Amino acid sequence: MSQSSVPDDWKAISDVKKKALSDSIPPEWRIPSNILPPDTQLDVTSFPVKSGWFSEQELEITAATASSILENVHTWKWSAQDVTKAFCKRAAATHQLTNCLSETLFSSALSRARELDDHLAKTGSVVGPLHGLPISLKDNFNIIGTDSTVGFAHWVNKPATHNSALVDQLQDAGAVFYVKTNVPTAMMIAETVNNVFGRTTNPLNRNLTSGGSSGGESALIAFGGSVLGVGTDIVGSLRIPASLTGIFALRPSFGRFPTRGAASALAGQEAVHSVNGPMARGIGEIELFAKTVVGLRPWERDPKCVPLPWRSVNVGPKLKLGVMWDDGMVRPTPPIQRALKEVVEKLRKAGHEIVDWAPELHEEALGILVSTHRFQHGRARIDRACRFRDPILDLLQYRRPTDPREQLKFFTADGGKSLKAILDPVHEPVRPEMAAYNNTAELGVHALWQLQMQRSTVCHKYLGRCREAGIDGILCATTPFAGVEHGKFKHVAYTGVFNILDYAAISFPCGANVDQALDRASDGSSPLSDVDRQVQADYDASAVHGMPMSLQLVAGRLEEEKVIEMTKVVLKAL
Amino acid sequence: MSQSSVPDDWKAISDVKKKALSDSIPPEWRIPSNILPPDTQLDVTSFPVKSGWFSEQELEITAATASSILENVHTWKWSAQDVTKAFCKRAAATHQLTNCLSETLFSSALSRARELDDHLAKTGSVVGPLHGLPISLKDNFNIIGTDSTVGFAHWVNKPATHNSALVDQLQDAGAVFYVKTNVPTAMMIAETVNNVFGRTTNPLNRNLTSGGSSGGESALIAFGGSVLGVGTDIVGSLRIPASLTGIFALRPSFGRFPTRGAASALAGQEAVHSVNGPMARGIGEIELFAKTVVGLRPWERDPKCVPLPWRSVNVGPKLKLGVMWDDGMVRPTPPIQRALKEVVEKLRKAGHEIVDWAPELHEEALGILVSTHRFQHGRARIDRACRFRDPILDLLQYRRPTDPREQLKFFTADGGKSLKAILDPVHEPVRPEMAAYNNTAELGVHALWQLQMQRSTVCHKYLGRCREAGIDGILCATTPFAGVEHGKFKHVAYTGVFNILDYAAISFPCGANVDQALDRASDGSSPLSDVDRQVQADYDASAVHGMPMSLQLVAGRLEEEKVIEMTKVVLKAL
Repeated sequence: MSQSSVPDDWKAISDVKKKALSDSIPPEWRIPSNILPPDTQLDVTSFPVKSGWFSEQELEITAATASSILENVHTWKWSAQDVTKAFCKRAAATHQLTNCLSETLFSSALSRARELDDHLAKTGSVVGPLHGLPISLKDNFNIIGTDSTVGFAHWVNKPATHNSALVDQLQDAGAVFYVKTNVPTAMMIAETVNNVFGRTTNPLNRNLTSGGSSGGESALIAFGGSVLGVGTDIVGSLRIPASLTGIFALRPSFGRFPTRGAASALAGQEAVHSVNGPMARGIGEIELFAKTVVGLRPWERDPKCVPLPWRSVNVGPKLKLGVMWDDGMVRPTPPIQRALKEVVEKLRKAGHEIVDWAPELHEEALGILVSTHRFQHGRARIDRACRFRDPILDLLQYRRPTDPREQLKFFTADGGKSLKAILDPVHEPVRPEMAAYNNTAELGVHALWQLQMQRSTVCHKYLGRCREAGIDGILCATTPFAGVEHGKFKHVAYTGVFNILDYAAISFPCGANVDQALDRASDGSSPLSDVDRQVQADYDASAVHGMPMSLQLVAGRLEEEKVIEMTKVVLKAL
Repeated sequence: MSQSSVPDDWKAISDVKKKALSDSIPPEWRIPSNILPPDTQLDVTSFPVKSGWFSEQELEITAATASSILENVHTWKWSAQDVTKAFCKRAAATHQLTNCLSETLFSSALSRARELDDHLAKTGSVVGPLHGLPISLKDNFNIIGTDSTVGFAHWVNKPATHNSALVDQLQDAGAVFYVKTNVPTAMMIAETVNNVFGRTTNPLNRNLTSGGSSGGESALIAFGGSVLGVGTDIVGSLRIPASLTGIFALRPSFGRFPTRGAASALAGQEAVHSVNGPMARGIGEIELFAKTVVGLRPWERDPKCVPLPWRSVNVGPKLKLGVMWDDGMVRPTPPIQRALKEVVEKLRKAGHEIVDWAPELHEEALGILVSTHRFQHGRARIDRACRFRDPILDLLQYRRPTDPREQLKFFTADGGKSLKAILDPVHEPVRPEMAAYNNTAELGVHALWQLQMQRSTVCHKYLGRCREAGIDGILCATTPFAGVEHGKFKHVAYTGVFNILDYAAISFPCGANVDQALDRASDGSSPLSDVDRQVQADYDASAVHGMPMSLQLVAGRLEEEKVIEMTKVVLKAL
């Protein structure tokens, strides 16, 4: 910190980068100060329609679905340039209200849109299935000539020299890239905050987090600044921000969409794979993305992709879903409990079969990602008793002298060395949310192998459970929350367990909102764990009043088609 | 060693186990001493037909293809019991001549066969597509109640308490398990030798190795003691033994056939996955196994399997193959060079397009598995010069003070701890072939991540090469050898590189045999490396005269259908 004035210091770098980002918004897209919502205005989502600052066409374009945008561009109702301009402007507005961007690509986006319009005019045909569709990208997707800082000062002004495989693929399909969106440091926090760009807020309530790590995307999409964005997910980074902003996100299984060539702070970590997936306000965009990306044969560009074409699947008419009311560690807060109840009721009314799904194996699965000591209370005590019979788990739970609550296992298995190599050159401090990366030691390959074995066992047992029960999928919370104040997010297990299992999962808004009259604080029934006690104690109905409530639908591994179809069936019943 | 008389000593355990194995062969299946080929008789493959010890029906059954066995059992020409008995007897003979078995399951096999016959008689229908087909299994497949020693004394008398997923699946399909076959210690030697059962020899020439690690299988199948066997492959353990005994083997990509629940000495190691695959005298059995196993939906039993149904693919009529004459490190010995030339000639004559395939990336790929210092000579010097520009590779090549020639990287990354935990309890020594496991240190997870990154880069580059060249597949040696004297096998790179890439590959006999008159020792042209010099110097045409010559065909990842079809096309041209 003593060198804060020299140019290789993280703070100076950050200041310059933030200013450059801010300066990259042209004057015509800066919100006039006389209509700028005051900081005290928490919900800013009405701004585009109410401010009068957007034209009718701009509002129409940015409210349209992706398929109507594609259709209107192809039929010349709108030019690709009209569409791009409208989204650039609305994204710029979102950024000014929520701090959701990390890079703007406005001028290259507009020239690309012009090229696409010219191509269509000249040839009468589109360049691909996404011709003229603006797509926003999470910061870690590499685009030649653009930074992928992933929230690190050291990675500022180090423009990418290659495109991510997905970027190449979407570009060939006709997409227009116009912004990259903010992430938490290393993409390893469930809120969006880093030392370079600071914190992204939730446009539905700026006192609340937009979630993380794809929380720049979720803020942008929830405000209408993007019709389709791409995020990533290693313990819930697509679904958590989607759920906290009331939008949709699909977490695919690894190997379905290309991941090659994206920036990562934990490069080479493969015990739990990060995956890419779409985020949008509708399930239609999610399906469009998934079908299109798989249809472009990603296995020809990314050796880790599976040559599995998009399949048409039939689900229903009657679904059999397992409903997991809680995960045995932390109960959903009251609004999410209500959402689950109401959705289950509606599904039953629509003729679907809903069976209870016990949270068996969930604590064990979470224990592979993080130390679960903090859950050893109440009901979880029984699990602990079982666990003490497992010598491998004992070894892994207790082997290190550091505070076990701080252990992230797979992600800190390198002793935090990968992270430090990015922080140290510019003296960037480890963020407090990431203390675990400081407070760790090399796990060693032998211990990693034991942990990987344990994961394989959990995956095998869970598959057996699902097959035995004959369920189509699982319905549960995405997080315990309908909304979380900044700094208070806890418990990634509702999503993270399905990363361990590598199942296809969607977070979807269930169409209802928190009502402080209905969703009063817990009745004080005995907590499942210390974390549960804290989550329930933190719950403040008035703080999240009006927030959308989201749930999670989960299908099996590489069942992206099925989880999309199931979501459509569920939405129909709501 | 001081405790060699106590029952927890490896030597005593081994003696008891070997005697039990030998005693498990019933008197009627022990070769009478008056017709037992003397140890000096190297080729024993003529024994079944010439000895008069086998009945006409036994010879007919054990010479039949799997599909005719299935047909004849289903139509009552042969009972499943006839078939099982014939294979038990021939397998017993193979063992007495080559030491190829680790377990016999004769009586359970015969009761199983009886059950199958009864079922067919009662119901008129078969239990599954493999009804009555005897299948031999490599030792590491778990069968409840049977040891899977993997060549370790400590694992003797520790019968499995669960079946491997593949065992369950094949059993449900109607297969009869009657023997398990010998492996080298830990399945990590390219010949078949361990401290419990000793060494397996090649029935075509008992001075030569049957290869490893699936070398019990290859000896058994080459002698006719099995019509279809299952082995495993992590750097070539299916293809190397197949090539050295003139049979077929398919190395599938990971996730195509179930691997869950098999014994492993490196459990939890996932940087390069071990895979299971079929071995047989014909391509028909290979296809039958692959189609059947995938058709049984292994992804419902093994969470690591990919839900990719068996596809019908069209290759040709004209193939475009890249021929890799050598891998830039070690040239094939003269017979394999001739085999390549002759096969290429015939393929060209049959109208196929054959282009040269430079061994680009092969040394780099091998360098991810093992230290490649020993190849830094001659032509490889150029590659070394390139490699010195790669700081990660430099790091990995030079970071440890031990003799880098002994480093196996991924497999010894745990510091040999997994292996020692199995050897030490019974004071079993590390075999000399496995010195690398003694001479190693914990790699550390951070270094493992770097190595995994490097592997991903090689996979990406290789995929790009294949796509750019537009080839259907690669034709090359399986090993440098047509035959190898015991203890002299070297160089797993021809197979191991395709494990790093995870490509589907088949080793096939090209239909010709070594001719000492034609396949004289190398012309002394400058060697590619020190290993190459040694391999060529070791070559003795008279020692391998008459041995079958095998080559390898390689398709892309998860292209098992394609590599089988390509092999059929190639066989047609020969």
